[in-house]
Amino acid sequence: MPKYKAVLEYDGTDYHGWQLQKDLPTVQGAIESVLARILGVPTRVHGAGRTDAGVHARGQTAHFLADWRHGPEKLLRACNALLPPDISVRGLHETCEDFHARHSARSKTYVYSIMNREISSPLHRLYTWHVPHALDAALMQEAANHLPGRHDFAAFGSPTDGTPSTVRAMIEARIESCASDMLVFTITGTGFLRYMVRSLVGTLVEVGKGKMRPSDFLCVLRSGDRSKAGPTAPARGLCLHSVHYESYPRRTR
Amino acid sequence: MPKYKAVLEYDGTDYHGWQLQKDLPTVQGAIESVLARILGVPTRVHGAGRTDAGVHARGQTAHFLADWRHGPEKLLRACNALLPPDISVRGLHETCEDFHARHSARSKTYVYSIMNREISSPLHRLYTWHVPHALDAALMQEAANHLPGRHDFAAFGSPTDGTPSTVRAMIEARIESCASDMLVFTITGTGFLRYMVRSLVGTLVEVGKGKMRPSDFLCVLRSGDRSKAGPTAPARGLCLHSVHYESYPRRTR
Repeated sequence: MPKYKAVLEYDGTDYHGWQLQKDLPTVQGAIESVLARILGVPTRVHGAGRTDAGVHARGQTAHFLADWRHGPEKLLRACNALLPPDISVRGLHETCEDFHARHSARSKTYVYSIMNREISSPLHRLYTWHVPHALDAALMQEAANHLPGRHDFAAFGSPTDGTPSTVRAMIEARIESCASDMLVFTITGTGFLRYMVRSLVGTLVEVGKGKMRPSDFLCVLRSGDRSKAGPTAPARGLCLHSVHYESYPRRTR
Repeated sequence: MPKYKAVLEYDGTDYHGWQLQKDLPTVQGAIESVLARILGVPTRVHGAGRTDAGVHARGQTAHFLADWRHGPEKLLRACNALLPPDISVRGLHETCEDFHARHSARSKTYVYSIMNREISSPLHRLYTWHVPHALDAALMQEAANHLPGRHDFAAFGSPTDGTPSTVRAMIEARIESCASDMLVFTITGTGFLRYMVRSLVGTLVEVGKGKMRPSDFLCVLRSGDRSKAGPTAPARGLCLHSVHYESYPRRTR
């Protein structure tokens, strides 16, 4: 059966995460139910990453098998017509038989947004973490400079199913100021542990507040001890920005 | 009694606009009820502009009288502790007796955001108007160049109470591209008619689509005929960005 690759954007506020759960609204559940209505058969959707409850995505990627004869453009339109407004299919095309949204992914980029001002922001509250204490972005970047490379990230998260190892490789980690009161943390890696980005952000914020030095951040990383890391930053600031693949040839029939 | 000036940010999604309405949630109602709890007496709040249902504000300005002996900083904290997360007081200070949030305002700036891409955006849906047809921003700016100056805007809105005149003076009107798929219309004027910004945006979008030329836009403006204007753009894309005053001395007691 033909295989399709879909790029998805969603507002995770009202979902219990990506992964299917009995009796709870999840993004995977919403998409599978729409595909079942369109295709007339139960359809399993495989996502590149299992975003947690409340986490957003700008470019989650998924694959599914479908017997559909009207072209991917019409399937995309049908999905978006039936999906709720907090989920969109941004792109859809037929892909190779051996493509797998999770296994074929070379790297992923997550973006974490912090509203750094004294008063909370009603207009950004759903998509940022409000940190009222002044943060030193330069110190946070100095700490984040320890992230690129291959490390055991046991201090920052738990293994995902399938691989007991907590070693992951990061490619880039940067802190940027955006407008006068927003700090944006962007991290790209070949794989991530559960809660890893939120735990990294929680710890970087301790550095930004001056409660921890950038060298202490390195010690936490080396310790492999989760009790040494900062608090886990809230889900709403996190967004799965994009999933990167080697270019797979698009199949056109 | 001392007079206070407050700068407010709010997400208008769940409110029936600024102005107090019986049995309906409004921003003014939410703030008055919080002030009544803090001050122990009913307190009337006067806003600079009556934002319509669903319209947001980053810098609505309001004034009220209060007998409060603990300083504006503590009053601000008390308000924010009691207000719901979709309304914040961003600034609060004591002002002159003759300050009036609406009458003393010299000008206001509104920002209207358009998500201009084929697929709607779950992450921007609450704060933008989704226009799937490609828009020509340069043509829209050419049309918007007719706005600065003093004109009769009867084609774009109805008079607000108190002044039957539909003549208003615009200071600046610009269209900017923001990221790859966002168009932002910013307009500053000394006063606005009801629905005026949304009606201007609806008409500018007709120009952007190529359905109307920039010179037609000028004809609509000159006609004073609302039936010639484009549709009224949805409330959710509009934000009262800021209200500008001549500098009033802050009173410190």
